[in-house]
Amino acid sequence: MDYFFKPGSIALIGATAKRNKVGYAIFMNLRKGFTGKIFPVNPGYKDIDGVTCYPNVSDIPEPVDLAIVFIPAARVPAVVRECSECGIPGAMIESGGFAETGREGQVYQDELKRICDQTGIRIWGPNCMGLFDAVNRRIFSFVLPAIWKDGLTPGKVSLIVQSGMLAAGFLLHNMTHGIMGISKACSLGNKVDVNECDVLEYLIEDPDTEAIGLYLESIVDGRRLVKLCDNTDKPIVVLKGGKSEKGAAAAMSHTASLAGDSAVVSSVLAHCDVVEANDFQQMMDLCRTLARYPHIRKQAPGRVAVLTYSGAAGIVSADFIEGMGHELADLAEETLSSLKGVFPEWMPVSNPIDLWPAMERHGEETVIQTAVKAVCSDPGVDAVLLHQFVRDAKSTEILSRHAETIEKTGKPMFCWLMGRAPNTLNAQAMAAKKGIPAYKELYRAVECMAAVMRIRQRPKNDTVLNLSGMPDTKLPEPLDNLLRTGTGVLDEHVSKKILSGFEIAVVDEALVSTVDEAKASSVTLGFPVVMKGLLNGEVHKTEKGLVHLDVRSKSSAADVYGSLWQTMGAQGKIVIQKTIKGDVELIAGLVRDPQFGPCVMCGLGGTLAEVLADTAFAVAPVNRTDALEMIARLKHQALLNGFRGARPVDRIRFADILVSIGTLGTIYHRIREIDLNPLIVTEGIPVAVDATIILGDEPSL
Amino acid sequence: MDYFFKPGSIALIGATAKRNKVGYAIFMNLRKGFTGKIFPVNPGYKDIDGVTCYPNVSDIPEPVDLAIVFIPAARVPAVVRECSECGIPGAMIESGGFAETGREGQVYQDELKRICDQTGIRIWGPNCMGLFDAVNRRIFSFVLPAIWKDGLTPGKVSLIVQSGMLAAGFLLHNMTHGIMGISKACSLGNKVDVNECDVLEYLIEDPDTEAIGLYLESIVDGRRLVKLCDNTDKPIVVLKGGKSEKGAAAAMSHTASLAGDSAVVSSVLAHCDVVEANDFQQMMDLCRTLARYPHIRKQAPGRVAVLTYSGAAGIVSADFIEGMGHELADLAEETLSSLKGVFPEWMPVSNPIDLWPAMERHGEETVIQTAVKAVCSDPGVDAVLLHQFVRDAKSTEILSRHAETIEKTGKPMFCWLMGRAPNTLNAQAMAAKKGIPAYKELYRAVECMAAVMRIRQRPKNDTVLNLSGMPDTKLPEPLDNLLRTGTGVLDEHVSKKILSGFEIAVVDEALVSTVDEAKASSVTLGFPVVMKGLLNGEVHKTEKGLVHLDVRSKSSAADVYGSLWQTMGAQGKIVIQKTIKGDVELIAGLVRDPQFGPCVMCGLGGTLAEVLADTAFAVAPVNRTDALEMIARLKHQALLNGFRGARPVDRIRFADILVSIGTLGTIYHRIREIDLNPLIVTEGIPVAVDATIILGDEPSL
Repeated sequence: MDYFFKPGSIALIGATAKRNKVGYAIFMNLRKGFTGKIFPVNPGYKDIDGVTCYPNVSDIPEPVDLAIVFIPAARVPAVVRECSECGIPGAMIESGGFAETGREGQVYQDELKRICDQTGIRIWGPNCMGLFDAVNRRIFSFVLPAIWKDGLTPGKVSLIVQSGMLAAGFLLHNMTHGIMGISKACSLGNKVDVNECDVLEYLIEDPDTEAIGLYLESIVDGRRLVKLCDNTDKPIVVLKGGKSEKGAAAAMSHTASLAGDSAVVSSVLAHCDVVEANDFQQMMDLCRTLARYPHIRKQAPGRVAVLTYSGAAGIVSADFIEGMGHELADLAEETLSSLKGVFPEWMPVSNPIDLWPAMERHGEETVIQTAVKAVCSDPGVDAVLLHQFVRDAKSTEILSRHAETIEKTGKPMFCWLMGRAPNTLNAQAMAAKKGIPAYKELYRAVECMAAVMRIRQRPKNDTVLNLSGMPDTKLPEPLDNLLRTGTGVLDEHVSKKILSGFEIAVVDEALVSTVDEAKASSVTLGFPVVMKGLLNGEVHKTEKGLVHLDVRSKSSAADVYGSLWQTMGAQGKIVIQKTIKGDVELIAGLVRDPQFGPCVMCGLGGTLAEVLADTAFAVAPVNRTDALEMIARLKHQALLNGFRGARPVDRIRFADILVSIGTLGTIYHRIREIDLNPLIVTEGIPVAVDATIILGDEPSL
Repeated sequence: MDYFFKPGSIALIGATAKRNKVGYAIFMNLRKGFTGKIFPVNPGYKDIDGVTCYPNVSDIPEPVDLAIVFIPAARVPAVVRECSECGIPGAMIESGGFAETGREGQVYQDELKRICDQTGIRIWGPNCMGLFDAVNRRIFSFVLPAIWKDGLTPGKVSLIVQSGMLAAGFLLHNMTHGIMGISKACSLGNKVDVNECDVLEYLIEDPDTEAIGLYLESIVDGRRLVKLCDNTDKPIVVLKGGKSEKGAAAAMSHTASLAGDSAVVSSVLAHCDVVEANDFQQMMDLCRTLARYPHIRKQAPGRVAVLTYSGAAGIVSADFIEGMGHELADLAEETLSSLKGVFPEWMPVSNPIDLWPAMERHGEETVIQTAVKAVCSDPGVDAVLLHQFVRDAKSTEILSRHAETIEKTGKPMFCWLMGRAPNTLNAQAMAAKKGIPAYKELYRAVECMAAVMRIRQRPKNDTVLNLSGMPDTKLPEPLDNLLRTGTGVLDEHVSKKILSGFEIAVVDEALVSTVDEAKASSVTLGFPVVMKGLLNGEVHKTEKGLVHLDVRSKSSAADVYGSLWQTMGAQGKIVIQKTIKGDVELIAGLVRDPQFGPCVMCGLGGTLAEVLADTAFAVAPVNRTDALEMIARLKHQALLNGFRGARPVDRIRFADILVSIGTLGTIYHRIREIDLNPLIVTEGIPVAVDATIILGDEPSL
C-alpha cells in the first residue's frame, strides 16, 4: 500500500486551473505538502500554475506511483485502464457518480472492479475524500486548502471512514479546536477494491499511528478484521452505523452494503479487545485518549483516585467509576499523611478527595500539586481523575505542570475541565499539547479512563481463528456424511447424536417404535419421563403439541405414544427422555454470519433467553480460553455463580461445549445454525436437553 | 419566600472593606445589582465604600427584610437570634464550619435549627453560596464579582443545588460560553431550614422560570417533592448524586445526609414526569432545551425528520432516535416533492434526508432553507433534527434564519453543530440567542429532543397522593387490630388473609392441624398440592426445608405432614395449597422509604426478579391510572403481552393489586414491607402464591 501512502510521484487526472473547482483544490493541496513529483493531467492545459500538464497519463515521461482521479464517472474506467497499462500500481478515485447514485453508476463501478481483477491495479474509492496525512503533509484530497492555515495539527490518531463528508467535518472540528492531532485519515468511499482491512493492516504497522478509529457501515471481510484486531496491541475504536432497524435501512440505501446484526458485530469485536464507540465525538475522544495512554491490561477493577473541589462532583464521579466496573482507590498511609499536611484538621481525608477546604487555606496551586504528586506516587492508585476549574490563564499553567508528574510516575491522568470561556478552550488545547487528556464532560472523562483500564479475561495475540485448539474428534461415517452432503433441519435426536460425537453432554434418551418399547424405555430411563414426537423439518415441537412432559407411568407412556403417533399422522419418530430438573438454564449455538462466517454464541436463559438478551459471540473456532472469556462477558454473572444457593456452573464444561460447537461449524461448511436450548445445569453440569442443527443447501465460508 | 428572592432591604453581617475577602465580594455583588437598601454590619467600620456600616443588626434604624450572614460559625447562632429579635424574617447564612466539619459544627447547626423552631425566622444555608438571580441582577453570593463583566446572561432556567462550588462552576461555564442563560440559581448548603421543596415551590410559581434543574444528594421531604413535581407542567430535571455504593458512602461523609435507594428515587420521580439527568453538563443541556420547548406530551413515539449532509451521520441519528423509543417520520407527498425540486434526479428522497448531493448543485443556503421549511410544514413531523456543519460566519447566519420557521410552524428544532473553531462556538451562542438549541454532540441533541417528546402513560395533575381512589375495604376486626398493634413478620397464611381482605386473589389453601385434616384438605384442593410449614418469624421457608412441592397422594400428604411437624419441632402451622402452573411470574410489594414514605412496587420475575431487575415504583396511595402507568414503565413488556403464546397479563387486575397494596400501606402505618412473590399468572390472571407482611415496632409516616 506504500504507493497510496508514500508515493514518489503522482498523476492528477482531472487537474484544472479553475480556482473554485475540486480539481484545483486537490492540485493545491498536493503542491503545498507533497514533496514528490506532480503530473497534472488535462488535455485543456499546457501547464497549471507553472507545472507542466499532460493531455493523457500515457504522455507522462516518467514513472508514476499513484494516480489521483477526479473526472466524471463515465470516463473513469477507461482512464484507470490506461493507468494500469502505463504501469501505475494504484489509483485513488475521488469522483462520485458510482454505485451510490443508482444503476448507471453501478455499471461503472462493476467495470472498475473488473479492471482491478484483470490488471492487478489497486483502486482506492471511488466516491471518497482520499487520504489526509498531517504528519507527512500529504493531503491527497479535495478538502478545502484553507485547512493548511488553521487546522493541520499532526498527532497520533489515524482514522478510517467510509463517508468523506464526515471525515472532513471531524478532522476540522477536532484539529481546529486543538483537542486532537491526526496522523492519517483515510476516506474509503465505495470500497470497490481497497477496504478497511487493507488500510487497517497498514496503519497497524505505521510508526506514526498510536491508535486507530474506524467508522464502518459495512464490513467487507469480518474474519480478516478480527484477525487484525486481535493480533495487535494498538488500540482500535470502532463506531458501527446502522444498529437500529431503520438505521440499517438507511445503511442499505446509502452504501448498498450489508449492515450486519449489531449484536454479533459488537460482541465479536469485543472478543478482540476492540473498543466500541456510539457517537462521533465520543469516538474521537476515545481515540485521542488511547493514543496517549497504552491500555492498562487489568484483570481486576482499576483503582482510581479522584481529586475534586466539589463534594458533589466527587460523588457523581464515584457513581460513574463504579458503574463502569472500576473502584475508588484505598489510599496508602503515605498518601493520607501528605494530604493531611494541607487539609484542615476537622476534615478526614478520603477518596474522592475534596480539595476545596484545603485550597481555602493554602491556595489552589500548592494543594493541587501536593495532591497530584501524592496520588501519582501511591502504588495502590492505577489512574487519577482530576477535576479542574478554569478561572484564568493561571489555571492552565497549574494544569500543564502535571505533565512531568505523569511522565515520572507513569500514572495516567484524566482531567475534567469547566469554567470561564475562552480560558477553558485554551486550557483544553494546552493540556492536549502537554499530553494530559482533558474533557468537558465528567462522564466522558470517566468513560475514556475506563477504555484505558479495560478488564481483560483473555490475553491478546492468543488464539483467534487458531484451529490447533480444536478437539480431535471424528464422527461415525454416516453422521459425517450427513453433515457434508445433507440439507435442511436435522431432528433433535440426530442433532444430539452429532453433538455427543463432539463430547457434548446430552440428555439420556431412547428412540422407540412400538408401545412396548415405549413402556420399556420409560422404565429404564426412570419416571417421570419426557416424550417427544419428531417430524421431518419441524422445529416448533411444543407449539405443535409434540412435547409431553411429566409422563409418570408405563400406562401413561403407552397413552402418550398412541396420541403422538396420531398427531404425527403415523410418520416421524418418537423419543423418550429422562426428565432433568436444573438450577439454571443456558443457551449455546452457532450462527454463520454473512460478515464474520461461523460465530459461536453462548447465553443465559432457556425460556427467558430473549428477555434476558444476554449473549456473547466470538468467531469460530474458539479454544477454551476464548470460550471462558465469552462466558465471562455475559452480564448476569450471578446466574452462573451459584444462583439461589445452587452449585456454580462448571465454566470449563460450558466452555468445552462452545469449543465443540465452534469446531463443528469450522469443519462442516454446510452447518448454517446450531442451537442448544436449553442447556439445563444440574449440580453445575450443563446438559443439552433440546438441540437443532440446520444445514444449508450449499457449503459456505 | 419573597424576603429571600426579592427583599426590599438587606443587612450584610460580616461585611468588610478588605478587597480580597469574601465579605467584600458579597458587598460588591449587592451594590452592583441590588436596587434596595444595603446595611453593612461590622463593628470595625463606620462605612464601607461610603455606605454606612453598623456595629450590630440592632443598630440599623430601618426595617430589614433579609440578613446575609458571613461570619465565623461560632458566632452565627447569636447573630441570627438577634436578627429575629429585630424582626428580620429571613437569614441567608453563607459561612461554613457547621455539620460538614464534624461534631463542633454540628452543635452550631443544631442551635440554628432550634432558633428557627423557636422564633420562626427562616434560615437559608448554612454553608452555601446563596442566591444568584441573573434576570433581576440580585447576586446574594460571594461568587467573584468578575462575573458581572463577562457572564451575567439572563435566561429561563433556574437551578437548585446543594453544593455551592458546583453551582458557581456551572453557571460560569454555561453563561460565559453563551450556551445558556440563567434565571435563578439557588445554593442551599446544609439545609437546616429552607430546603429544595420550599425553593422548588417558589420557582414553580416564578414567571421568570421556564425549567428547573435540581442537583440533590439528599431529599428532605420526598412526598412533598413528588406532589410539587406532579402538580406542575414546568419541566423539572433532577440529577441525584450518590447512586453507587461508594457514591452513597461519599454522600454520607459529605453532607451527613441520607442518600435513598436510587432505584426508588428514580422510579418515583419518573412517575411524576421528572426528567432524570446523569451528568452535570447533560443536566444543563436538558434544562436549556426544556426551557425553550414545552414538553410535547406524546402517547406514541415522536416522528422525527433528520436533515444531514452525511449519510453516515444520518444512520447514526436513526440508531439513536429508535434507541430512545421514537421513530423517523414518514414524509408527506408535499414534503417529498419540495425536496425533489432540489435533489439530483438519481437520488430518491428518504428520511434521514441527506442534503449533500443537493447542496453540490444548488448551494447550501437554498437547499437547507427549502428542506427546513418543507419538514417543518409536514403534519407528520413532530420534531426536526438538523445537522449543521459550521464553515464560517455564513453558516451561523443560515442557522439563525430557521428561528422564524420554527416560530411560525411551532415545530421544535434541535441542531447538532460541528466545524471550524472558533466559528462553532459563535454559532452555538448565536443559535441560543435565536432560540434554536444547538449541541456539540449528536447523541446529546437526540437525548434532549427525546426529553421534549416524552411518552406519557398518565396525565399530569392527575392523582398523586390522592386517597379518593382507594378501595373502600374493611378488614375483620382481629386482622385490623393486628395491623394496628402487631409487630414483626406476619406469616404467609395471615398475610394472605389480609391481602384477600383487600380483594387480592391468593392461592386456595387450608390450614391443617392433624394428619387426617391434611389428607382431607389435599383431596379437596386436588393433587398435586404444595405443603408448607409456617414458623413464627421465619421468612426463608425454602432454605429451611419447609416447602414441599408436588405432593401427589393422600399417603404422601400424610408423610409430608409428619416430616414438617418434626422439622418444625412440633410448633408452628402447616398449610396446604393448590399447585398453580403459570405462564409468567410477577412481583408486587410495598416499601416504606425513608425519603418517600410508603411506595408501591411492581416488577417482573418470581425467582428471576433480581436478575431481571425490572421494577417500577410510585408513592402510595396509587389509583388504577397510576398503577397502569407503573406497569407500562416495566422494561420487558414482552413478558406481559402474551409471552411465548400465553394469554396477555390482565393489566387491570395487576393494577388493582397495586392499588390495594398502596391502600394497605397508607392506612396501616405499622406496615414496613409487603412482598407478593411470586404472583403467578395463569390465563392472564395474577394470583399471589406466597406473601409476607412485615410490621415495624412503631407506626411511621
